[in-house]
Amino acid sequence: MPEAKPTTEVTTDALSTLRRALRQFAAERDWDQYHSPKNLAIALSVEAAELLEAFQWLTDDSSRSLSPDQIAKAKEEMADVFLYLIRLADKLDIDLVTAAEDKIALNALRYPRDKARGSNKKYTDL
Amino acid sequence: MPEAKPTTEVTTDALSTLRRALRQFAAERDWDQYHSPKNLAIALSVEAAELLEAFQWLTDDSSRSLSPDQIAKAKEEMADVFLYLIRLADKLDIDLVTAAEDKIALNALRYPRDKARGSNKKYTDL
Amino acid sequence: MPEAKPTTEVTTDALSTLRRALRQFAAERDWDQYHSPKNLAIALSVEAAELLEAFQWLTDDSSRSLSPDQIAKAKEEMADVFLYLIRLADKLDIDLVTAAEDKIALNALRYPRDKARGSNKKYTDL
Amino acid sequence: MPEAKPTTEVTTDALSTLRRALRQFAAERDWDQYHSPKNLAIALSVEAAELLEAFQWLTDDSSRSLSPDQIAKAKEEMADVFLYLIRLADKLDIDLVTAAEDKIALNALRYPRDKARGSNKKYTDL
Repeated sequence: MPEAKPTTEVTTDALSTLRRALRQFAAERDWDQYHSPKNLAIALSVEAAELLEAFQWLTDDSSRSLSPDQIAKAKEEMADVFLYLIRLADKLDIDLVTAAEDKIALNALRYPRDKARGSNKKYTDL
Repeated sequence: MPEAKPTTEVTTDALSTLRRALRQFAAERDWDQYHSPKNLAIALSVEAAELLEAFQWLTDDSSRSLSPDQIAKAKEEMADVFLYLIRLADKLDIDLVTAAEDKIALNALRYPRDKARGSNKKYTDL
Repeated sequence: MPEAKPTTEVTTDALSTLRRALRQFAAERDWDQYHSPKNLAIALSVEAAELLEAFQWLTDDSSRSLSPDQIAKAKEEMADVFLYLIRLADKLDIDLVTAAEDKIALNALRYPRDKARGSNKKYTDL
Repeated sequence: MPEAKPTTEVTTDALSTLRRALRQFAAERDWDQYHSPKNLAIALSVEAAELLEAFQWLTDDSSRSLSPDQIAKAKEEMADVFLYLIRLADKLDIDLVTAAEDKIALNALRYPRDKARGSNKKYTDL
């Protein structure tokens, strides 16, 4: 993949470095046997819920002004989500940046500025 | 933040670009009112579950050889997770790459190669 | 509600007892302020993920033969899911048993025996 | 199990009926092969997230006054959670009502009225 997309590789350098670090981490521990896409998707979902737990019972407003401890907790859980996302993308040979760019483009079509402004509706209800 | 960390800014260029695109997307639609950290964490968790749904009922083995349609579905849901993660990091002023690097370092301490090799146990049970 | 549905009340007695116990538990702690349906749905989702975590990294087969410790962990998380489900149903004035019966009837239509036999496909793909 | 606990059986009659209905539903479709505890926990978690999605972007207040359509959506997703919970409990031979009662008793110890009143803190932080 790096050979095929030299330009993207430059701009996504941090992601590539993390991807390689995770590959090595798993290889050194013989963990690829556990890292099926299904299991990685489970792990990602569990970490996303642990992130959500950091905001449980908070009001919207208090979630905008977290304490340093709350930020640290959120940061660690977000790192877990990010790492499993990178690992799963590696296993499925998906380029996360391209996927994200494609989704933003799709969302721009689904949520035209005029119709979506100030609305919290799903595009299917706009 | 960009001024303070010029070096990191270069290596996380793709993430910065996505972060700015999401800021603009929300601003143009007056969506910041909905994008409290709590709500973004909910959205991320919902998308993670939609990603997991793509693997529901599959065996581990079949999750390793997805059809093009299944890959496309997974790719879109992974993009959603990624975008909400970037957006939440922006709102909390968290650097995702640094957070990920810190977590890999912590995991290296929690899961020493010798003890963790071939094991699916949590570090608290190693 | 009890007055209006005496017959159901008898058959769902255990659920009614739990519902009342949870009402009292919250009232004694002045927790109704936190128990918005949104917050209860978050809590339920977080507990469901903690339940899922008990099965993370296990194979399908090993999930069928859990250790006593694993069963105890699953039991506690299932209780949490159940309690939040009952509490949310109470707040939304939804009868869980009727809801479940209705859904089984809908699933019987969506998944006819002949078409669904041995298949792991979603009804929209049958 | 019914023979061993005649008294509980009476009070949990609605749950027993649903459990039997789900057993039959799965047997008629040859679905027990998919219904490993792991897969059922995944399904439950996915449904919990679909329930949460019904409250996504709502304020706490608006989640307290849902429209009939929103109630119907929540009801269906709560039914899904409930059914998978009953099915998983059946597979793990767990009595949901006993599990719930035990957890309420544990919570009463973890959250003493005086210390927990009006607080949204986790028991580990009380």
